[in-house]
Amino acid sequence: MNEIVYNASLLGVVTGLIALAVAWSLREWISNHPIGVSIPEKTHDRILHNAKLIKDGASTFLNREYKIVAKVSGVILIILCLLGTSGIFLAGGFLVGAFLSALAGASGMSTNVHANYRVTLAAYVGLPYAFKMAFRGGAVTGIMVSSLGLLCVSTTLLIIWRFAPEYIPATLIGLSFGGSLMSIFARIGGGIFTKGADVGADLAGKSIAGLPEDDPRNPAVIADNVGDNVGDCAGMAADLFETYVVTFSATILLTMTLLGENSPWVAAPLLIGIIANISFISIVFFVRLFGKKKGIMSSLYGVIIANIAIAYTGTFFIFDWFTSFSGTSGVFNLYQIMATSGIAFLVTCLLVGITDYYTSHNYKPVKKIASASHGGEHALNILAGHSVGSQSVVPTILVIISAIIVSYMIGGGFSGQENLGLLAIAFTSSAMLSMAGVIVAIDAFGPIVDNAGGIAEMSQVEEKRVRNITDELDAVGNTTKAVTKGYAIGSAGLAALVLFAEYTKSFSDLNISLDNPLVLAGLLLSSVVYLFSGWLIDTVREVAQTIVKEIERQFKNPDVMKGKKEPDYEKTIDIATKASIFGMIKPALLPVVVPILTWFILGPEAVAGLLIGSIILGIPLALYMTISGGAWDNSKKHVEDGNHGGKGSDAHKAVITGDTVGDPFKDTAGPAINPYIKIINLVPLILVTVMAFG
Amino acid sequence: MNEIVYNASLLGVVTGLIALAVAWSLREWISNHPIGVSIPEKTHDRILHNAKLIKDGASTFLNREYKIVAKVSGVILIILCLLGTSGIFLAGGFLVGAFLSALAGASGMSTNVHANYRVTLAAYVGLPYAFKMAFRGGAVTGIMVSSLGLLCVSTTLLIIWRFAPEYIPATLIGLSFGGSLMSIFARIGGGIFTKGADVGADLAGKSIAGLPEDDPRNPAVIADNVGDNVGDCAGMAADLFETYVVTFSATILLTMTLLGENSPWVAAPLLIGIIANISFISIVFFVRLFGKKKGIMSSLYGVIIANIAIAYTGTFFIFDWFTSFSGTSGVFNLYQIMATSGIAFLVTCLLVGITDYYTSHNYKPVKKIASASHGGEHALNILAGHSVGSQSVVPTILVIISAIIVSYMIGGGFSGQENLGLLAIAFTSSAMLSMAGVIVAIDAFGPIVDNAGGIAEMSQVEEKRVRNITDELDAVGNTTKAVTKGYAIGSAGLAALVLFAEYTKSFSDLNISLDNPLVLAGLLLSSVVYLFSGWLIDTVREVAQTIVKEIERQFKNPDVMKGKKEPDYEKTIDIATKASIFGMIKPALLPVVVPILTWFILGPEAVAGLLIGSIILGIPLALYMTISGGAWDNSKKHVEDGNHGGKGSDAHKAVITGDTVGDPFKDTAGPAINPYIKIINLVPLILVTVMAFG
Repeated sequence: MNEIVYNASLLGVVTGLIALAVAWSLREWISNHPIGVSIPEKTHDRILHNAKLIKDGASTFLNREYKIVAKVSGVILIILCLLGTSGIFLAGGFLVGAFLSALAGASGMSTNVHANYRVTLAAYVGLPYAFKMAFRGGAVTGIMVSSLGLLCVSTTLLIIWRFAPEYIPATLIGLSFGGSLMSIFARIGGGIFTKGADVGADLAGKSIAGLPEDDPRNPAVIADNVGDNVGDCAGMAADLFETYVVTFSATILLTMTLLGENSPWVAAPLLIGIIANISFISIVFFVRLFGKKKGIMSSLYGVIIANIAIAYTGTFFIFDWFTSFSGTSGVFNLYQIMATSGIAFLVTCLLVGITDYYTSHNYKPVKKIASASHGGEHALNILAGHSVGSQSVVPTILVIISAIIVSYMIGGGFSGQENLGLLAIAFTSSAMLSMAGVIVAIDAFGPIVDNAGGIAEMSQVEEKRVRNITDELDAVGNTTKAVTKGYAIGSAGLAALVLFAEYTKSFSDLNISLDNPLVLAGLLLSSVVYLFSGWLIDTVREVAQTIVKEIERQFKNPDVMKGKKEPDYEKTIDIATKASIFGMIKPALLPVVVPILTWFILGPEAVAGLLIGSIILGIPLALYMTISGGAWDNSKKHVEDGNHGGKGSDAHKAVITGDTVGDPFKDTAGPAINPYIKIINLVPLILVTVMAFG
Repeated sequence: MNEIVYNASLLGVVTGLIALAVAWSLREWISNHPIGVSIPEKTHDRILHNAKLIKDGASTFLNREYKIVAKVSGVILIILCLLGTSGIFLAGGFLVGAFLSALAGASGMSTNVHANYRVTLAAYVGLPYAFKMAFRGGAVTGIMVSSLGLLCVSTTLLIIWRFAPEYIPATLIGLSFGGSLMSIFARIGGGIFTKGADVGADLAGKSIAGLPEDDPRNPAVIADNVGDNVGDCAGMAADLFETYVVTFSATILLTMTLLGENSPWVAAPLLIGIIANISFISIVFFVRLFGKKKGIMSSLYGVIIANIAIAYTGTFFIFDWFTSFSGTSGVFNLYQIMATSGIAFLVTCLLVGITDYYTSHNYKPVKKIASASHGGEHALNILAGHSVGSQSVVPTILVIISAIIVSYMIGGGFSGQENLGLLAIAFTSSAMLSMAGVIVAIDAFGPIVDNAGGIAEMSQVEEKRVRNITDELDAVGNTTKAVTKGYAIGSAGLAALVLFAEYTKSFSDLNISLDNPLVLAGLLLSSVVYLFSGWLIDTVREVAQTIVKEIERQFKNPDVMKGKKEPDYEKTIDIATKASIFGMIKPALLPVVVPILTWFILGPEAVAGLLIGSIILGIPLALYMTISGGAWDNSKKHVEDGNHGGKGSDAHKAVITGDTVGDPFKDTAGPAINPYIKIINLVPLILVTVMAFG
């Protein structure tokens, strides 16, 4: 092992551990706060009571979900172990990857239910304090995701390189696969739970009985808030952890394949991850509302910009040092590295910005949906949202294409250095993923403030001042959840492309030309992603319908209706849990089974078509679904802000329909495509590894 | 020119002319019927009056649409002529193709408005008579489409081969491009008109004023019926004419490229077309309701089966003769030809069958949508329909993949005969398209009986017996329009693949491997199809909203409301016409501009990615949109048949929302993707031709 790589791995482990310590201290800070809050005792009790209900519900779900995943993982572990020596390393990596992905999800969720009611309490003190509380909660999850990711990749290199260097690829692929499999279960299970509960609660609560959102009489209201934690937080954290691990593993593997195993450049991706990790933990304590207007969203955007600025400066210094040690001949010089990182950071900002444009009610698209709903026509609302989602795809894709082409050019791909061109694309992907910490932090901010608002409503907080603060935070939370999705999808696509490059480099004579009918068959077969998304939407609808029935049953008791008796919250949580855990298995195994069948029926050339096809079809579909969902959501908010007749108007009914349709689009099916794409690209790599090493 | 090819071309011209004569005589038969009908004079007058309104509206629209297309075509003609000698042949072909595509559309529409009210009148005599009238109306369009297609390809071969054989490719490509461009305008313009009017009429008529469908007081009711003719009939006829010409031209070109220009096998595709043409005209006079139950749909399916049986037998005899003349060495033997034709006919039946399963109310998917709407939840209806559409994609794609792989295998592609494998795929496509006559006939049956029902309603036909017949026919028309769409999309995909094969064979050293970042960029870029579809949906929504406003304006006049004064039908037709003609230009030019820009910015390798990507993304998207639309439509019919509370129930309101969303999905955006895919594949072929020949 090259000494530089050894040192970089060591530095990765140290940075990861420091970051974990920072996360811990942030969590401690949250535990000891809020301070100086004076709240009427009854309200305080209700807040604690509801927070506990949410916490218990979330824990119950996660326990049951993880048990099922453990069983499935057990079967896969056994199969992997039966595949020979490389299978054992695959299995080892798989175990660690799955465990850490589960840990990232669980810790994110646990921080959320730790922080959510504290934000409600902090709102009694004031907005800046509540904001700080919510941001630090999100930051814990963000740091967990990126530091666990960095830690496991660095540790793998350190350990495996010492004892069995030839099995580094197997271990890294196993690690990625474990992370991905856990993540698809988390995304799907959590996604079905959260939206089944949300749609069920909305339909029964609003449409049938005319209750406002988060009314404590609605039996599904706790399940809805639980869903924010298990879906939007735990699912998302597992997903981005996995993308992080996949991208860095694949970049390291590609570097080893293209430059040789002993190249010092294997350290380069690690350095990119390390510097980004340091830059985020160095600013996290200083984050507060700033600027003249102290806008929440602009403060959060400020955090991204600051993080990028520090990371970019750090990249310059660290690679200035690195290139002087490692030499740049036959690889990249400092300016090429700065260019790929620059592209990555620019792409990060652009993807957030484009998603913001299409989903924020400050711009034309969302306003158009709201105005199409003006006459109360549900169908026009749906058509308008569908059209916004469809039109949002191309700008995002153009950014991704530009990133690919320009990176390839910078690497020298068009000047005869095809391999370095590919490597430059991988470096850009890694630099983009190095921003996962701050992006997850901002994303996880969403479910925390969403819960804080829900708890305030359920606990019947009466102070208008406090409610205004939680409402304002809640509105921003909606946006943060939306804008980070473009980044998650774009980065998933790039990660999968790096995996694909590694797949093709594993063969010496694969005919993956577009005019090979087998490649074509594989490409066409990638339309399976429609089946995947169709299944998920169907399951959410069924869960929602079951919950509606349960709510109607409970509402027959007049005491529940009048608020005299607390509804049976556990029952709805139980229904949603069972249904989502049952419903997640079939779709989660689809991306595992399809490439295996394709491999054995049509061969590795068709598999190549399937892999690229899944990216080509999956990314637009995921973008369409998440962005239309976000736009429908905010067009509802726009009407509720008093436009087109405001709450209770015909327009409001129409935008509620759009919001309900959009819910599983943006929070179940759309984001689940991220791990889907990566699993479908990882499984063939496992087959290749097993066949090469036996 | 090989003598066999010459003779086959001559036979193609003769067959085409005979078929045209048959079409003419069918039309004459319709003109002289119905006979023996006794109808109250007032009703008779109203029927004629309404029929004339529809006819005039349709003619007005088509005139204006064709004027715009003529202008655009003029510009393209000039550009083509400036591109040198081959440009002139391209231009010549373009002119003929565009003209014949327009003619196919216009004659289809003219037959429809000729037959629609006669079916209403014939319903006074009885169902078998009305059925015969409607079928013969559809058959005229079907014969026109396939015979004009056969005629123009055969004539091109005869004439150009004699005078300038080296320009056959340019002429055939021009012919295809002309047909495609006309067809995309027809699909988009007609599609926007028909669904803008339909959605507008539905929303205003049903939701706002509570009028039944086709009520004469609704000012948009004539526009709605006009739409059936200009969209479902003229648009569809132009589309399938174009697919026919593209497939046969591309197969002939590929044969010339792979087997040499003087190979007798250039005649083979023509023979396939000739025999199918003969088989359809040989049975068309014998079609009537048959079987014990005299079911309409089963009789129509019987027509397809009979046609296939005769064509297949004919294929055997004609290729038995042909192979004995032309020799089979280095090409296909009789059994290989029979196998490709067999696959094609099987695929035709399977695509119709699969679409039937997902869109007919006899099966689970549609029933599921209806039952999801049971509680009156619009959102659940939308989610259920979305999910049915998504899940329908994979079975259809599997059929297409199997057709490709098995054809390739039969051609010997897996035994070292790659070129013959490709050619076998092209032969399968041609055999599939040879069925266009009968499929279009059954498709065009739809708008005729739809209109017949509309005219009966508008003309206030009082006899229940008559109304039952028109209603029954109308219900079947819905199904025929739906089931033929799977065929149209599948055949469009295969046609585009043949074009792509021709594109790649035009280069000697194109690196179109999946790991070429330029190919990847092109593949990603194909997500432009989402923009295309998004634009169309948006335009339909806007047109519908404008029409709703106009209807509301007219309804302010109490005389219109009470039925004392005929509403201003022309005004709504005028609005729909202007809006759809204005709205069609931007999307229609998208597939022309995007490949040209890609070619000049990223080069021909990226273009290859774009071409295949457009097929890979376009087919699933088109299937998803048309099938979900059809399923929504029939779930509405299912509720209206008395299920889940029947008409006027909450469930009915929810299924109306789904139907309205599905309208532009299935009749505007979905089918418009067919010509889109082909134009995007033709434009680069033009560039290649121009650059090769100058």
